[in-house]
Amino acid sequence: MITFYDFASTVPGKTVNPNTWKTRYSLNYKQLPYKTEWVEYTEEIERVCKKMGIPPTTKRPDGSDVYTLPAIYDDSTKTGVADSLLIAAYLDKTYPDTPKLFPDGTEALQTAFNDAFMSKFGSSWLLLVPVILKVLLPSNVDFFVRARSAALGKPLLDILPVGEEREVQWKNLKAALSTVDMWYQKNGGGPFIMGDTPSFADFIVGGFLSIVKAAGHNIPEWKELLEGDNGRWKKLGEELEKYERVV
Amino acid sequence: MITFYDFASTVPGKTVNPNTWKTRYSLNYKQLPYKTEWVEYTEEIERVCKKMGIPPTTKRPDGSDVYTLPAIYDDSTKTGVADSLLIAAYLDKTYPDTPKLFPDGTEALQTAFNDAFMSKFGSSWLLLVPVILKVLLPSNVDFFVRARSAALGKPLLDILPVGEEREVQWKNLKAALSTVDMWYQKNGGGPFIMGDTPSFADFIVGGFLSIVKAAGHNIPEWKELLEGDNGRWKKLGEELEKYERVV
Repeated sequence: MITFYDFASTVPGKTVNPNTWKTRYSLNYKQLPYKTEWVEYTEEIERVCKKMGIPPTTKRPDGSDVYTLPAIYDDSTKTGVADSLLIAAYLDKTYPDTPKLFPDGTEALQTAFNDAFMSKFGSSWLLLVPVILKVLLPSNVDFFVRARSAALGKPLLDILPVGEEREVQWKNLKAALSTVDMWYQKNGGGPFIMGDTPSFADFIVGGFLSIVKAAGHNIPEWKELLEGDNGRWKKLGEELEKYERVV
Repeated sequence: MITFYDFASTVPGKTVNPNTWKTRYSLNYKQLPYKTEWVEYTEEIERVCKKMGIPPTTKRPDGSDVYTLPAIYDDSTKTGVADSLLIAAYLDKTYPDTPKLFPDGTEALQTAFNDAFMSKFGSSWLLLVPVILKVLLPSNVDFFVRARSAALGKPLLDILPVGEEREVQWKNLKAALSTVDMWYQKNGGGPFIMGDTPSFADFIVGGFLSIVKAAGHNIPEWKELLEGDNGRWKKLGEELEKYERVV
C-alpha cells in the first residue's frame, strides 16, 4: 500500500495545492491502491518526511535541507519519494504494467514542459497567494508566509501585486495561459497534450487548474480565466475530473 | 523537389544560422530530396518569400509583415512554408512514410520544448551576436543590425554585454544549458531527448550547437561551453553530424 502525503486544508476532504494534485492525479490515473495522510503546512512536513525516510527536495541558501510535499511512502518497496516529477518516474518504473505517466521516450520532454509551464507564469504566481491563503488551515498561514518569504528573500505579503501592478500581472497570467493553449493546439485535437491519452504534463496543468477552479467559484476574474482560450481549460478540467478521487 | 531557403554566409557552402539548421536537420533526417537556395540577409528574404508565395511569420508593431527563414517551397504540392516548427509539421504530414520529426503525440510537447529552450537563454543570446556578425556576408551586416534593432526597439550594438555584464550573461548561458542537460538526463541514457531516436527538439538544440561549434574553433570560452555538462553537447553534436549534409 502506498501512503500519499498531502496538505490539510479548509476544503473538506480536499487539498488545493497545485503540486500535490499532480501526484493525486498520477496515483488515480495508474489506479494504484493508496491512502492519503493529511499533513499540516508547518514543521510537520519535515517531521513526517524524516520519520518515513523521505529525502529532502532542495536546500536553503545556508545549506540546510528543505522537505516538501507531495511525498509518498511505498510499503511494498520500503521507498520514500518526494517531488511530483520524481514520484511519477518512480511509479512508472515500479509499476510498469499501469498506464504510463511518461509515455515511451517522453520523460525528458515532459520535464522540459514542467519547466516551461512554471517559468511562463513568472511573478504572476503571486496572484494565486490570496487564494492559497484562504484554503490553508488558519493555524498554518504563519508558517506558509514565513517559508515562502525565506525562499523569496523578501516578505511575501509586502510584494503581493496591487492596483496597476495587479492589472499587469493579470495580463501576464492570461498571456502565459494562452501560450500554453498554443502548445495544446498542436495535440491533434485531443483534450490532452498528447492527444486522447493523459500524461504527466496534463496533470501539471491540472494542478494549476485546481486552484483556478477553487477560486472561480466565487471570484469572477478566475472564472473568466478558466473559461478563456476557447474553453480549452474548462474542457481539460472536466476531462481530468475522473482522476480526482480523494481517498 | 523541395527548395530550402537558407542564409548565405562567409563559411563556404554552409550557413551558421540556428533556425535554418533546424530545417536542414529535418530534411536530411527524413531523407527527402531537396536543393538549397542561398538567400542574403537583406530585403532579399522578403522578395524571395513573396515570389514563392511563402507566408510571413510575424508582424511588426506597425502591423506590417515580417518574412523570415528558414522557408521551403515544395514543388509537388505547390506549397510554401516558413518557420522551422511549421515546416516540420508540414513535412511530417505530407511525407508520413518518412521518419517522424514529432513522434506520435509529441508535437505539442516539442512545441513547448522549443519555447522552454529559447526562453531559458533570456538576453544571454546577445553573446551570440558577435559570432553571428562574423559569419554574415559583410554586405548583410547592416541589414541584420537594423532588423534586430527594430525587433528589440533599441540599437543592437549598444546593448551587447561587456565587462561585468558579459560575465553575468556567460554564467546565465552556462546555467541555462545545464538546465537543458537536466532535461536530457531523463532520456533513458540515449543521446537524444527521446532516447535513441532523434526528434525535432534535438534539432532545436543542434541549431544552437551549430553556432557554438563554429565559435569554438577559435574562441576558448565557446569550446569550453561545448565541452561542459559532462560532454553531453559534444556527444550530441557528433551524433547530429550524420544529418548535416549540405546540398
